[in-house]
Amino acid sequence: MDYKSIIRSVADFPKEGIVFRDITTLLQKPEALVSAVNDMTESLKDVEFDYVLGPESRGFIFGVPVAYAMNKGFIPVRKQGKLPYKTKAKEYALEYGTATIEIHEDAFEPGQKVVIVDDLLATGGTTKAMIDLVKEMGGEVVKLVYLIELDFLNGRSVLGDCPIHSLINYDAE
Amino acid sequence: MDYKSIIRSVADFPKEGIVFRDITTLLQKPEALVSAVNDMTESLKDVEFDYVLGPESRGFIFGVPVAYAMNKGFIPVRKQGKLPYKTKAKEYALEYGTATIEIHEDAFEPGQKVVIVDDLLATGGTTKAMIDLVKEMGGEVVKLVYLIELDFLNGRSVLGDCPIHSLINYDAE
Repeated sequence: MDYKSIIRSVADFPKEGIVFRDITTLLQKPEALVSAVNDMTESLKDVEFDYVLGPESRGFIFGVPVAYAMNKGFIPVRKQGKLPYKTKAKEYALEYGTATIEIHEDAFEPGQKVVIVDDLLATGGTTKAMIDLVKEMGGEVVKLVYLIELDFLNGRSVLGDCPIHSLINYDAE
Repeated sequence: MDYKSIIRSVADFPKEGIVFRDITTLLQKPEALVSAVNDMTESLKDVEFDYVLGPESRGFIFGVPVAYAMNKGFIPVRKQGKLPYKTKAKEYALEYGTATIEIHEDAFEPGQKVVIVDDLLATGGTTKAMIDLVKEMGGEVVKLVYLIELDFLNGRSVLGDCPIHSLINYDAE
């Protein structure tokens, strides 16, 4: 499916000079939503894994239906203070300041394999933090799946050798 | 499925005296995730509607797979400032202060019907704001579906006569 033609580009959001790729126009269309989830699922069909991991909040949008369609469990990765039980946390750098993500400490067992599903690969900062956190907890991230990859931000360069599948790529703003 | 037995209760979260119903232990289990989505879908099978609406961020967790499974579009309802295009907004009262939700102004056409899917019906404040906003935009909320309903908070009392289906109910903390 030609996803690019149904993703809206919004200039100067969230700040001047940024072209925001707005996926709400894709989510609106049943055939596009179903196709995107199925394409993600297809990219994981030969991958052995236990859970889908998705970061709050846009990572929930594709992560849960992929888990549902593949009969896997879903693990939410949330911002600091949102998960109610005992967590493991990871702080990482943003353009200005830092952010912290958390995973419940009993979300998976040591030795288990997870895939990360998210809407967007930009600089890779959040994904890198998730990969590191999963590793510290004794698990392994075995594949990364995105709807959109912004090639010009070169997020891949910080993600090691974990296989990456993006449904669409933008090579320039 | 006996969902209550796999939902974790966490005492004193997010503050003292509150028992938080932690759905992450349900999402972890593939058979429970699939069953919950299918039970929600089943409750909507005789309902005529155009879109599933889900509020950020836990409303994305069940809203998107229900939309996927029923071949419907999904409309995210987000906190102020998160949606990139032109929005309609609604402010509503919280225990302390107020919150504002937004929907893209072209998310649906006047006359269209939507269902709201969320993980939790508590006091009903967020749902009421969504119902009012959809109405102001010329649409209609035709059913509300929740994983959990906290009966003792009596959220139903503020939601008018819109049909409500909850997979499980707690009648006391």
